[in-house]
Amino acid sequence: MKDSTLQQFGFEFRTDGISNKVKSISISAIKGMVAIAEKLENPVSFSWGIPPFATANFIRQYIIELLNDQESYQIDAYSSVAGQIALKTAFTNIISKQKKVDLDPTNEVLVTCGAMEAIRLSLEALIDPGDEVILFSPSFPSHREQIILAQGKPVYVPLIEEAKWQIDFDLLTKSISSKTKAIIITSPNNPTGNILSKDDLQKIQQLAEEHNLFVISDETYDFLTYGNISHISALTLPRFKERFIVCFTCSKKYAMSGWRVGFLCADAGIIQHLHKVHDATVVCVPTISQLAATRAITGPQDSVKQQVAIYADRLHDMCKRLDKLSHIFSYQKPDGAYYMFPKINPKIATNDVDFCIEVLKKAKVVLVPGSAFGPSGAGHVRIVFSLEEAILHEGFDRLDKYFGV
Amino acid sequence: MKDSTLQQFGFEFRTDGISNKVKSISISAIKGMVAIAEKLENPVSFSWGIPPFATANFIRQYIIELLNDQESYQIDAYSSVAGQIALKTAFTNIISKQKKVDLDPTNEVLVTCGAMEAIRLSLEALIDPGDEVILFSPSFPSHREQIILAQGKPVYVPLIEEAKWQIDFDLLTKSISSKTKAIIITSPNNPTGNILSKDDLQKIQQLAEEHNLFVISDETYDFLTYGNISHISALTLPRFKERFIVCFTCSKKYAMSGWRVGFLCADAGIIQHLHKVHDATVVCVPTISQLAATRAITGPQDSVKQQVAIYADRLHDMCKRLDKLSHIFSYQKPDGAYYMFPKINPKIATNDVDFCIEVLKKAKVVLVPGSAFGPSGAGHVRIVFSLEEAILHEGFDRLDKYFGV
Repeated sequence: MKDSTLQQFGFEFRTDGISNKVKSISISAIKGMVAIAEKLENPVSFSWGIPPFATANFIRQYIIELLNDQESYQIDAYSSVAGQIALKTAFTNIISKQKKVDLDPTNEVLVTCGAMEAIRLSLEALIDPGDEVILFSPSFPSHREQIILAQGKPVYVPLIEEAKWQIDFDLLTKSISSKTKAIIITSPNNPTGNILSKDDLQKIQQLAEEHNLFVISDETYDFLTYGNISHISALTLPRFKERFIVCFTCSKKYAMSGWRVGFLCADAGIIQHLHKVHDATVVCVPTISQLAATRAITGPQDSVKQQVAIYADRLHDMCKRLDKLSHIFSYQKPDGAYYMFPKINPKIATNDVDFCIEVLKKAKVVLVPGSAFGPSGAGHVRIVFSLEEAILHEGFDRLDKYFGV
Repeated sequence: MKDSTLQQFGFEFRTDGISNKVKSISISAIKGMVAIAEKLENPVSFSWGIPPFATANFIRQYIIELLNDQESYQIDAYSSVAGQIALKTAFTNIISKQKKVDLDPTNEVLVTCGAMEAIRLSLEALIDPGDEVILFSPSFPSHREQIILAQGKPVYVPLIEEAKWQIDFDLLTKSISSKTKAIIITSPNNPTGNILSKDDLQKIQQLAEEHNLFVISDETYDFLTYGNISHISALTLPRFKERFIVCFTCSKKYAMSGWRVGFLCADAGIIQHLHKVHDATVVCVPTISQLAATRAITGPQDSVKQQVAIYADRLHDMCKRLDKLSHIFSYQKPDGAYYMFPKINPKIATNDVDFCIEVLKKAKVVLVPGSAFGPSGAGHVRIVFSLEEAILHEGFDRLDKYFGV
């Protein structure tokens, strides 16, 4: 979201002395809408994708036990920079079991403050000024900002909306230049819910090998798919370590967004460099969070299954509510993650930012303008369905009323 | 610490595909020595400055209470990007009381993953490629890496060792060029323990105003001073908001290094930009850590006083032990923080890296080579005294034996 849009709402942006790269990045429209909404009374937010669940009780109880053990100050102190070996081992064990991939916990995994920090570090380690990074349009807004912070140039490749937002490989191939250094892929995709097939991943690897590119794979929603489609990790590709950096997080899977634990998997020679950047950025992920994540990964996975079933119900609810507004919105049903990315009927509105601000002011419902997700997002909105059921319906009741349904 | 030094110990650094800036930064010698030490059996570490105390019981008990409240998932979810308003208000209240400064918690404070992230964000927001940033020699090694990550050029200004490592203002003035954008100050200093006087701060402000510079003030050890000298914050300067970014942390004061909570104070117009970078780096500081920090700041401060007294005892112990090795080390006694930065007798060794590696291998004691702290650090070592008493003595017993005392 542009600084100028936020300025309408009383946000001030100083320009003197600020670096060009930071002046040219925007606050994520997701957080921009949240910030605008904070100035209103009682809005319903379809903006920020936060799991509406408490972290499982057995995880909380484990932390309580640790905090009651007054003998130890290890839980209050820095962990090693790369993360606790117990956590990294628990993580690689589950990866090995689920995805049949061997990863060395000591040298091929870094524990990060969520997938956000993992991708930020990866771009810092790969991008020199002027390098181009391909990302798909639409895609998660922070990726663009992270590319610019690393002094790279974001190059958007439009996805094919009518084919469930799949990749157009002809267009992707044409978008690769001599300056292209990396491609960012997100599967399941945020905001489209598209899932990359084995074939998609193989084609991406082939292009990366032909053109000497790295691929950063954001697999934040790997556990969250609907129907018969399952997620395929880039980790399952042969030779993935040569060119892939694969990022995961506990935020969504374990309803631990506030604990800030993610994982980055890559070749040991890349991890050594990322380690330096991670140290100079946050030192380490909070130790207490790492301990909670270790318990989450090694403990029973029932709550993950239950939550996936609840998200599937919410998707069903949201589709039904959107169908009632079919003269306003049309949509592709997502195969994964917990977002929908409907298109606004161009007869109703053509500028998605104005549309969202109008809906926010008049209906007190927070939608995220689609243009923040890349040029192909123009004329769309992102709506999250990681919500309590009653809130989802309250939001749509307001929309129905606003649109006169 | 140079990648090449670490390579001697089996660390591999890939060079193909890695960005120039990341190739040219080093792992902090502090963490490099820790990593090397991990390959040895039972070393005594004088390397990483970690408080040897558990976080106070009332803070842990507060978190236990929150975790027992199963109704709420707010403690498990992202906080607002800039940090919880309750924490920011608690922080500005104590700043206002202690330092007689008014800060607006909503617009002039950002909660960060320690002072480390605060300084990293500040440099990102200020530095364009080629901008020079002045830092003192010796100074905290990560500052150099953070300047390079922001595409800036670190310019070291030597401190005056014989005058307790004070600033040489003539040299500082001469080091300012048309490309200078910022100065990083650290008071109490890590590694020297020097504390900037009111007069020092005023002179720095005057230079900043004359030459249109920003000043990043790292006040991590603000609570930890010895004897009659007290810390003076850059926040107490008139007009500080025009040019100063002031960074604090809970890591040392509340023995919460593993919880990763820091604060950045600046002009609202700068905070708005830092907010964007913080979001694209870690999203927010872990919510559970913010809640613990809020309790730490608003609760009884007895444990802080007790710990300061213990650090003073350890300083006394360490001086006595160093005096026994006066043919090996000479030192300036620190006025604050918990480090000593003794000079190695040049008759014993001239290369501090070789010296530290030799001591590590032969005596199994981890010292940090002084050259990692800037050119003036050559021929010195940093020794931390935030240690349990028995460990401090065990380390010096080993050094005595090694040096034949």
